[in-house]
Amino acid sequence: MLIFEKARELAIIQSSAAVLGWDQETYLPPAAAGHRAQQLAWLSSRAHEIATSEDWKNALESAENERGHQDANLRELRREFDRASKISVELVARDSIASSLAKHAWADARERSDFSIFAPHLETLLIIAREKAELWGYEGEPYDALLDGYERGTPTAAVASLFDAMCPALKELAARAVEISALQSPSLPPGPFPVEAQKKFNAEVAAAIGFDFEAGRIDTTTHPFCTTLGPRDVRLTTRYMEADFTSSLFGVLHETGHGLYELGLPEADFGLPSGSAASLGIHESQSRLWENHVGRSRIFWEKWYPTAQEYFPQLRDFPLEQLLRYLWRAEFSPIRVEADEATYDLHILLRFEIERQMVNGTLAVKDVPAAWNERFRELFGFVPKDDRHGCLQDIHWSMGGLGYFATYTLGNINSAQLYAAAQKDEAVAQGIQQADYLPLLGWLRKSVHAHGASMDPAELIRHATGSAPTTEAYLAHLTSRYL
Amino acid sequence: MLIFEKARELAIIQSSAAVLGWDQETYLPPAAAGHRAQQLAWLSSRAHEIATSEDWKNALESAENERGHQDANLRELRREFDRASKISVELVARDSIASSLAKHAWADARERSDFSIFAPHLETLLIIAREKAELWGYEGEPYDALLDGYERGTPTAAVASLFDAMCPALKELAARAVEISALQSPSLPPGPFPVEAQKKFNAEVAAAIGFDFEAGRIDTTTHPFCTTLGPRDVRLTTRYMEADFTSSLFGVLHETGHGLYELGLPEADFGLPSGSAASLGIHESQSRLWENHVGRSRIFWEKWYPTAQEYFPQLRDFPLEQLLRYLWRAEFSPIRVEADEATYDLHILLRFEIERQMVNGTLAVKDVPAAWNERFRELFGFVPKDDRHGCLQDIHWSMGGLGYFATYTLGNINSAQLYAAAQKDEAVAQGIQQADYLPLLGWLRKSVHAHGASMDPAELIRHATGSAPTTEAYLAHLTSRYL
Repeated sequence: MLIFEKARELAIIQSSAAVLGWDQETYLPPAAAGHRAQQLAWLSSRAHEIATSEDWKNALESAENERGHQDANLRELRREFDRASKISVELVARDSIASSLAKHAWADARERSDFSIFAPHLETLLIIAREKAELWGYEGEPYDALLDGYERGTPTAAVASLFDAMCPALKELAARAVEISALQSPSLPPGPFPVEAQKKFNAEVAAAIGFDFEAGRIDTTTHPFCTTLGPRDVRLTTRYMEADFTSSLFGVLHETGHGLYELGLPEADFGLPSGSAASLGIHESQSRLWENHVGRSRIFWEKWYPTAQEYFPQLRDFPLEQLLRYLWRAEFSPIRVEADEATYDLHILLRFEIERQMVNGTLAVKDVPAAWNERFRELFGFVPKDDRHGCLQDIHWSMGGLGYFATYTLGNINSAQLYAAAQKDEAVAQGIQQADYLPLLGWLRKSVHAHGASMDPAELIRHATGSAPTTEAYLAHLTSRYL
Repeated sequence: MLIFEKARELAIIQSSAAVLGWDQETYLPPAAAGHRAQQLAWLSSRAHEIATSEDWKNALESAENERGHQDANLRELRREFDRASKISVELVARDSIASSLAKHAWADARERSDFSIFAPHLETLLIIAREKAELWGYEGEPYDALLDGYERGTPTAAVASLFDAMCPALKELAARAVEISALQSPSLPPGPFPVEAQKKFNAEVAAAIGFDFEAGRIDTTTHPFCTTLGPRDVRLTTRYMEADFTSSLFGVLHETGHGLYELGLPEADFGLPSGSAASLGIHESQSRLWENHVGRSRIFWEKWYPTAQEYFPQLRDFPLEQLLRYLWRAEFSPIRVEADEATYDLHILLRFEIERQMVNGTLAVKDVPAAWNERFRELFGFVPKDDRHGCLQDIHWSMGGLGYFATYTLGNINSAQLYAAAQKDEAVAQGIQQADYLPLLGWLRKSVHAHGASMDPAELIRHATGSAPTTEAYLAHLTSRYL
């Protein structure tokens, strides 16, 4: 099919841009930033041109006439084309300039903890976001159209009802977990945990849970990420703290989760929806599953602690129980990226509520700091000391990423539901009992990875677990771990 | 000018391909090679399409009508366009397939030291090379057209007369240098010279001679190289031997020479001929100047030896004189890439003669091994033990790089002529006396780098040194160093 060839060509371009993006984050000399931006702009313009061209449209229509609308790839290519072609080149350019200016203003505003520097930019980004929402269209509310860009086929109301139902339990659980953890004052023995030893330990763990170093690497960046440069080329990154070896390790476990998903997608379908990730919420389910359900479990550490003790001699007299307490510590932090498993979702619930109101026009930009702090107080019991530790902390809005935050908690919910379902398979359950996670990976490949984006995320979860997305398994997991 | 905008766009694409190429050599996971080849093929097809399009041609013609043919950029863009558009897409594809097959066959042939495996491929590559030569046209002989692709405006006969005149002196000098060096049996104290210390020492030296680490990096590869990913983004690589710190250092000095040239090209003209290197022979003059004239000089080591001794304690009791003897050692090796300064050019003269005859049709492929060995015996006094150590050792022909080899020796000749001319400037000469090479770099920037490809290489040498390319300074340098 011509349209499939075109989609594969588009993936060649996009994955080339990904190489440049990866290099930008890992190895780019400082003076090279300007030229790199031009290179990336050229590649993304070509990609946009191709994906919205008459040729593309004609190839898509002729494939639809031939195969009808039942083909999952054609259905998804149609959806993407309609979304892309509803946005004019003028709006794309305006959006890109606005985000670029907003990112600088946000960095400055955060630095000075001065929301008024960022506010006019956020206003502009919201106008553009609403304009896009109107062009894309929605059934319930404008926010639907934005969320759909990250979590296909998932209405805002459905997310809100999951989150609202979970909120009281989550709030209570977090408060109690923090209380219990405070009594234990968990800590690690003193560092340094040498970076070279951390690298070796992390790589050993990543390989053992199935990451193929013939088809990927781990490099170092300020913010850990995972990016795909080709069907057999997945790059992970992490950061190192000499005082805490678990920081880089859990970064690696998280990104390895993303990477295993990418490497598990059908290689022959690279560039087609059936060879692409289903959604951000599904992607995050994979990273959180390996990070939290596997990596923070007692069984995992019973297997890996002796190895850790070899790499880090100061652990030799440090009991496993104390390490586990450290890994299961809970604390209220004003900062999302520093939050633990027990308190993380409260941060997301807050952001989801605030941005939904902003996008739908029921919360004015000028009122965001007050609304943030008020809701924060309700959830966490205290108010951040300033906007830098409050509504200015995240980069997402400044990048035009409105609608993104919910996918973090959807990922957590999905991870627990998938992990519970996987264990109904006897081989998986037996493997986990012995800290052998290859049967688990096999189940995920078959139940999740192999389907790419052939199903909408909610449908994929139902297909893999037998029920629609539900918070049951997730709350059970948190309760059993923290209470 | 529209044509200049187009040339800059082309440079964006080519420099993006350079990023992918750099990553391919430095960090690419093994399983990713296939997809990377597809990405590079897409980028080079787009580049070729643009550079040979009707749009390009029209923009070039209209610029010529406006400015006439005196503009150096237009003159060079015209030359490139004519060369590129004389080759059909069909021939480009045939060439690319032939080289790709030949590279595999060559690797296999070298491995087994069996020329018959490579011979039919070399035959095909020669047919294509001659076909291209006929399409490009030439005045004297077919080889002219190939050489012109690497060393613009330099006829084969001019190179041959330089080489022929130099050959007897070079042969005698090499033989005597080898004799003298053998009596001294130069060596380094035992390693290991730790890789981390080598990296720090190399970086300190590269920075001191002017390499800007804000606009470049040094990474590790099997074969050292220098590549430009943007006007302020030059990547060098080297390789490390724990037994010999000078191996990585001279790799770095050589590649830093290339890198200083690239970073010295007029930044605002990136993508235009006036912002591009003049030729391979000029490029190599820069690398060899820093590697051999600066890096192997006594003054350089009087300054840097104490630092080297700090990094490598085993040097503390090792006299500077012995190090210099080691750096000036001369030995006949059958392998070009292992050859020292005193014997290197004999390898090039041999290759230039052989490939000139092959291309012009006066030497049949089947007779290459015998011709190689016979000429090798005349120059070196012995015969390589097999074709693996003889005519199969270099990758160049298998990549279709016929016409390339001469530029190595042209680079050596140019390096000596430029280094001698630079020292007529008092500040440069005074700087060199104190091992301060920034005045030298300033002179090179002004006399060579700033002109990009606005002049043909021979013209550039005349402009910078006051005389046409001549072997005088080079032979004087070798004589004074080795005899």
